Amino acid sequence: MPLVRIDVIEGRPESEVRAIGDAVHRALGECLDVPERDQFQIITEHPRGRLIYDRAYLGVERTDGVVLVQVILSAGRSAEQKKAFYSRAAQLIATQAHMRPEDVTIVLIENKREDWSFGNGAAQYVTLPKEQWK
Amino acid sequence: MPLVRIDVIEGRPESEVRAIGDAVHRALGECLDVPERDQFQIITEHPRGRLIYDRAYLGVERTDGVVLVQVILSAGRSAEQKKAFYSRAAQLIATQAHMRPEDVTIVLIENKREDWSFGNGAAQYVTLPKEQWK
Amino acid sequence: MPLVRIDVIEGRPESEVRAIGDAVHRALGECLDVPERDQFQIITEHPRGRLIYDRAYLGVERTDGVVLVQVILSAGRSAEQKKAFYSRAAQLIATQAHMRPEDVTIVLIENKREDWSFGNGAAQYVTLPKEQWK
Repeated sequence: MPLVRIDVIEGRPESEVRAIGDAVHRALGECLDVPERDQFQIITEHPRGRLIYDRAYLGVERTDGVVLVQVILSAGRSAEQKKAFYSRAAQLIATQAHMRPEDVTIVLIENKREDWSFGNGAAQYVTLPKEQWK
Repeated sequence: MPLVRIDVIEGRPESEVRAIGDAVHRALGECLDVPERDQFQIITEHPRGRLIYDRAYLGVERTDGVVLVQVILSAGRSAEQKKAFYSRAAQLIATQAHMRPEDVTIVLIENKREDWSFGNGAAQYVTLPKEQWK
Repeated sequence: MPLVRIDVIEGRPESEVRAIGDAVHRALGECLDVPERDQFQIITEHPRGRLIYDRAYLGVERTDGVVLVQVILSAGRSAEQKKAFYSRAAQLIATQAHMRPEDVTIVLIENKREDWSFGNGAAQYVTLPKEQWK
């Protein structure tokens, strides 16, 4: 259900970039009920100076290791679920991609089930029963 | 009204990339009432491994030809209109850009009319009567 | 609070690219009550032909100097505030980055306060009192 955009500053090892994506996906599954196969992500590296962040906003110390994670997903998750997701995503990204949890910034954008088509011109979340979302 | 982001894996002929954008725009006009001149699109090619997709989610067989289409548009279209759009977009992309309809993934994000400025610092969808949206 | 994506056609001087980001941020602070330190932006340059725009939609004359500004922010601003923001952003971008105000296109996407995590796996806009948003 989600489309995930992950933006980082260039220069990371390939294995770490991929690990970030996998960590986000695992946290989505554990905390927000996202099916295992439902992994659609775009990871983009940017030159320094083209990904701009503040080093201290809200008292969090950020570095050039910063990662911006944007998740588009259907509405329906509670604030508690979202909080659990932020916590788990930061933890998994830190451990699996060797990052600082301070550097993990996440934003969610919600839409509706009718707002998705997963191929063949169909609106699967409207036409398929939920048991078949896998 | 829409801002369209189209993401593909690199290596496609230039003509096909452009044809994807034109096919999406034509389907938006036919099914979602988007004015002909209202074409604003960002098409990005990504290295393999930076556009991650599942090869079988929801029973749809996807390949590296996958295209992710994200459309930001004002709210107001019905679920039926959206379904017609998915169907037409997949059909047009397949025929005009020589793609598999299975590879066409679409997500919509809705906002409000007041959320757009088309230049000169104006909020045209609030200040201009609808007859002049062209 | 906002995550800003700025897309332009490649070929601008580095100083102008950065000036666009700073102008958007200043207008966000002046008109939409965004804290000074709350600057998170991704600026991307695209080859000609990959950023597609209409040269005359809504009677505005656009050129290859076009800039697409997408702002994700928490809901809560009035239509009047948004209009003030468009006006100020176009003015500041024009003067600070030597652009035509006709070329400044802006779109807003709103989410909720619970939809943000600014590091450390926390949902700061839910857990921190507003006086500490700085």
